[in-house]
Amino acid sequence: MALIVQKYGGTSVANPDRIANVANRVVRGWRDGNKMVVVLSAMAGETDRLINLAKELSEDPDARELDVLLATGEQVTVSLFSMFLRSQGVPATSLLSHQARIYTDRAYGRARIIGIDTARIKEELKKGRIVTVAGFQGVDEVGNITTLGRGGSDTTAVAIAAALKADLCEIYTDVDGIYTTDPRVYPKARKLDRISYDEMLELASMGAKVLEIRSVGFARRYSVPLVVRSSFSGEPGTLVTVEDEAMEIVPVSGVALSRNDARVTITRVPDRPGVALHLFQPVADANIVVDMIIQNTSIDGHTDLTFTVPKGDLKKTLEIVKPVAADIGAERVLSEENIAKVSIVGVGMKNNAGVAARMFEAMAAENINILMISTSEIKISCVIEDRHGELAVRVLHDAFGLDIPPPKKRGTSF
Amino acid sequence: MALIVQKYGGTSVANPDRIANVANRVVRGWRDGNKMVVVLSAMAGETDRLINLAKELSEDPDARELDVLLATGEQVTVSLFSMFLRSQGVPATSLLSHQARIYTDRAYGRARIIGIDTARIKEELKKGRIVTVAGFQGVDEVGNITTLGRGGSDTTAVAIAAALKADLCEIYTDVDGIYTTDPRVYPKARKLDRISYDEMLELASMGAKVLEIRSVGFARRYSVPLVVRSSFSGEPGTLVTVEDEAMEIVPVSGVALSRNDARVTITRVPDRPGVALHLFQPVADANIVVDMIIQNTSIDGHTDLTFTVPKGDLKKTLEIVKPVAADIGAERVLSEENIAKVSIVGVGMKNNAGVAARMFEAMAAENINILMISTSEIKISCVIEDRHGELAVRVLHDAFGLDIPPPKKRGTSF
Repeated sequence: MALIVQKYGGTSVANPDRIANVANRVVRGWRDGNKMVVVLSAMAGETDRLINLAKELSEDPDARELDVLLATGEQVTVSLFSMFLRSQGVPATSLLSHQARIYTDRAYGRARIIGIDTARIKEELKKGRIVTVAGFQGVDEVGNITTLGRGGSDTTAVAIAAALKADLCEIYTDVDGIYTTDPRVYPKARKLDRISYDEMLELASMGAKVLEIRSVGFARRYSVPLVVRSSFSGEPGTLVTVEDEAMEIVPVSGVALSRNDARVTITRVPDRPGVALHLFQPVADANIVVDMIIQNTSIDGHTDLTFTVPKGDLKKTLEIVKPVAADIGAERVLSEENIAKVSIVGVGMKNNAGVAARMFEAMAAENINILMISTSEIKISCVIEDRHGELAVRVLHDAFGLDIPPPKKRGTSF
Repeated sequence: MALIVQKYGGTSVANPDRIANVANRVVRGWRDGNKMVVVLSAMAGETDRLINLAKELSEDPDARELDVLLATGEQVTVSLFSMFLRSQGVPATSLLSHQARIYTDRAYGRARIIGIDTARIKEELKKGRIVTVAGFQGVDEVGNITTLGRGGSDTTAVAIAAALKADLCEIYTDVDGIYTTDPRVYPKARKLDRISYDEMLELASMGAKVLEIRSVGFARRYSVPLVVRSSFSGEPGTLVTVEDEAMEIVPVSGVALSRNDARVTITRVPDRPGVALHLFQPVADANIVVDMIIQNTSIDGHTDLTFTVPKGDLKKTLEIVKPVAADIGAERVLSEENIAKVSIVGVGMKNNAGVAARMFEAMAAENINILMISTSEIKISCVIEDRHGELAVRVLHDAFGLDIPPPKKRGTSF
């Protein structure tokens, strides 16, 4: 008998039929003797419907009230889900965030979970009930309703699994696991059986939309065994876990493509100490996340500075950077939105020399021009021209043989 | 500067335009320097939409979960309402039942308010904010969500007004006040300026659907000055208040028609002590409210017993009564659904002899057959054939001259 937390996304509970379907899956786990906690998202389309309602009354809806509004989406799902279970004679109880006691800070629309008091959940589980919890939402210390932002239900599920020390946290979605790359971009993409938290974090931050990145960080920090699988099939999915012996012994596990970033270049920046601080402090103060930064070697006391920011923040970034650039005596501020970022990710990279070279070589062979490069211990990212995005994914997928299932490690590793 | 509680029903907040409209009315009160608490219902049609969703998943939805579901209706309205106010630069805050601390018992679907801790509402008012409160709902002592039943938002408003000792509680609806009778039944119906709590209670219980009956009882118990008025016009509405000198000096204030009841007759019941108890105890145990009971004079030790129950409870009543009737040796159990109940109501009745006679005379003149009669201090009700319902209303309205505004009392009353 295990304690299992399951999370079902919006497409899995999009209508009463699908809710009944998913509920039957939950009941099977419960009949097998497991304790079940089910975290649900709003029905697909519901959050957008509510946002549109809000937009009819306010161009820029108040953040606190928008959260009160959006929280109804999951409230509808958990109540429908629980009443279906009860109509089948299965004991079930829905809990909203103030009942499940999911406490967050007061950052409306992007709140962070700071604690969960599991007493009520445990009490309901002890009664033998299936507990359904409204995902995506929490309450602050005085009971204001907050939401965690898009994909927040993943975080709710992992946080509850961590707080309950659950044996497993299953994230049910409309794809059947984590792939070596997006199958819509490259049909040769292969489903992974296992992936490490670190690789998953890199892939998630790279734009793989299967798992919300905060939920992966949470899972890693509290060692929550996480499975990503489909609610529409019986396939086993992908286990996200600590890097271990059983992992595939390959240098690269996946290729990710992201089109979220824009590039800003400031030319002929006087190469003086403190210049970078002058430029990036106000950007950071505006809560804009700068991803890559590249500074060319200084020539005649001047340098070119290039960095990327999320496309949605480009306008604001330019507004901030232009006066500063003028102030410090730089020449021009240029920007470019038609860029893509292609990344290869793999824990095996650490022990494999030449991975970067192989990446650059494969791209060069197809005349894909690399504009910027950044690396971490388990990731290499290249900014390229937008039009080369899909081609780069296919080329790299082939270059690292990701379509071929690698042999499993046996015995002691060396 | 006054403390005003306003309640707007579903048709008044049926869409974003109407919400904006109503909000502007609230803002006028607030700009005049009043403290404003606004209780809102779900958008018209929303509760039915949610019930239909529930019915798709369960024929007989679990009561607790249905309340969780239905509570989203008002949550949507209060958040939209508050974000509109905020977008206009007016400080506003929505409060759900667990935030406004509206405590009820645990009778899901028909919960009773047992207390309100007004600390949070007062705190928000002190900050100069307009407070919007989700009507129709509460929480029990452990935080489960409950709903008060249809029309429950009226009760929420009156209860908050009572708890805050508000100067006024205004119930905004789609009609502009309390009428001498339903204007759709008789266009000569006249709007009343004032009506006593007692009269309003009788009218509400008689099927006048403008005010939920529990809210009137609440208002009377805590002497909350209540005004019923239209959100679509600037008309002053009707004040529901204690019976006083300023009331119209008429024996009858209104005529009500109800088609909610069915009649059950048990023939040749042996006239023994305890027989009535035998029959009515199991009916009461099944939570069926018996309205009128008539027992004919006993002939040869037998009597006929006739009573009315809500139409929706007729089937269940017959199931209960038939075996008991057989048991005690009664002859037959008959039932009739094609009945109507017409009532005249007025505090002036107490001091006016001959009101009943005038009622019977008016009906006899039109050959309306009276099947049952019941009276209270300020009400006379007659059960008649269903087809005579509207005719009876018009005849009685004319007989008591309700279309003519009566003179106001002047000086000392005698």
